[in-house]
Amino acid sequence: MSRSDVENKAGVQRGPEPGFKRLKLTLAYCGTPWRGWQSQDGGGGVQDEINAAIRKATRIETRVQGSGRTDAGVHALAQAAHCDVPETVRMSGESWANALNACLPLTIRILSVEDTAPSFHARFDATGKTYRYRIWRPRMLSPFEADRAWHVYGPLDMDALRWCCEKLVGTHNFIRLSANRGDMPETQRRTLPDKTTRTIHRVDLRENGDVLELEFEGDGFLYKMVRLIVGSLLHVARGREPKEWFASLLNDSTGMQSNQTAPACGLYLVCVNYHS
Amino acid sequence: MSRSDVENKAGVQRGPEPGFKRLKLTLAYCGTPWRGWQSQDGGGGVQDEINAAIRKATRIETRVQGSGRTDAGVHALAQAAHCDVPETVRMSGESWANALNACLPLTIRILSVEDTAPSFHARFDATGKTYRYRIWRPRMLSPFEADRAWHVYGPLDMDALRWCCEKLVGTHNFIRLSANRGDMPETQRRTLPDKTTRTIHRVDLRENGDVLELEFEGDGFLYKMVRLIVGSLLHVARGREPKEWFASLLNDSTGMQSNQTAPACGLYLVCVNYHS
Repeated sequence: MSRSDVENKAGVQRGPEPGFKRLKLTLAYCGTPWRGWQSQDGGGGVQDEINAAIRKATRIETRVQGSGRTDAGVHALAQAAHCDVPETVRMSGESWANALNACLPLTIRILSVEDTAPSFHARFDATGKTYRYRIWRPRMLSPFEADRAWHVYGPLDMDALRWCCEKLVGTHNFIRLSANRGDMPETQRRTLPDKTTRTIHRVDLRENGDVLELEFEGDGFLYKMVRLIVGSLLHVARGREPKEWFASLLNDSTGMQSNQTAPACGLYLVCVNYHS
Repeated sequence: MSRSDVENKAGVQRGPEPGFKRLKLTLAYCGTPWRGWQSQDGGGGVQDEINAAIRKATRIETRVQGSGRTDAGVHALAQAAHCDVPETVRMSGESWANALNACLPLTIRILSVEDTAPSFHARFDATGKTYRYRIWRPRMLSPFEADRAWHVYGPLDMDALRWCCEKLVGTHNFIRLSANRGDMPETQRRTLPDKTTRTIHRVDLRENGDVLELEFEGDGFLYKMVRLIVGSLLHVARGREPKEWFASLLNDSTGMQSNQTAPACGLYLVCVNYHS
């Protein structure tokens, strides 16, 4: 967790320094070559690449703040982020996007840049997110899908899958369908349900040719939560556990965590929602 | 050119050694991580990976022969190849494919393996090939298309493009739309039209959402020929040369070679045709 996140969590809602304005960035990336969203020692985080592109394009040193992390190999269709730049910089959003895209690897693209309120925070103001998970169904995984879908071959109990998807909608304690990021003792995480309770507004299950797509819209997602949900759903759909096992993961927060994690390569952050 | 190719070219149609039988392989690959089809010093050719997978799966040392090379970054939906294995090996085609796929990287997939005539040769028996070229049209290149399409933004003269595509169909000397592989002095290549004459049976131009696809079916393609055809076609479509320039590349073999080469990442070998 970065210093400014800590400050924010402590209630110090930090806006830009005097003389700076805040920009909102929307960006897409293919996660395959990257070590996730988060800055990494030695580089390789998408965040590192964006910071470097801003530095290269404008000589401005700033630090983009994302709406949240994505794991290594996870893709984004519209991740959101903010950063602060000197007020004296007069560039249209389109100029910003063009300048950054010219400095970024082709697997990371800035979709838009806009001026935003000084109080806007990409992470703390997010009111929800949508994730999509792609599952490749035929016997043979296409070599063009190797890093973009999870290969699940064999019969699936679609009725059980639909039943579990319906159970997901609503507010649940996702302690058993999330992992500890290491920023909180597990005992504390276990005993503070408000830390691990989230609301899923919508689950869509779509069969689209060779691909089965699951889409989740919710007010927020814990670490590894979507991958644990999908892994556990497919565990049931493959007949390895009854659907009641999945329901108990949602209804009884005292049991064992699920150990069924779907691989990162099938996961896409579709969009991040904000008020207004 | 490998030794056995030289022998074959010299008219010695070499079948398998005594006690060996010939297999035909059909395979797909995403070319992005590979240094092309051809075996490379230090590895990295798709051919190297297949030889290694056969060795690993069966302990048989053999050398697959492809229908032809593809450049680094070029993809294949159904490349063809052959290799010789001991007659004593009794494995169904499906077992072969499964065994090899288990030993291959996910970006290379064996689609089928079948017994074939001892005289079959993936390269010399090929009666034609189909190539597809994908062009990404919107202003911004999707980060998921970076290695899978050529990004061409801006207006295209589709009428001129169609006119040129029609001119392509037929038999032409492609000396100005191909490159020297270095296996023949350029003076010799220039003066032997039978070396550089090929027939294009079909050209399809398809607008498919954000992607413009060009598909070429012909009796054979010279080194860099498809990429030079596409690069030159788009040069005209972007209004940088009149369509007569493209026609002259086909009709007058004495002029300068085209220097408009489309990038490898948009090119897909769709299939290889054989008699019967």
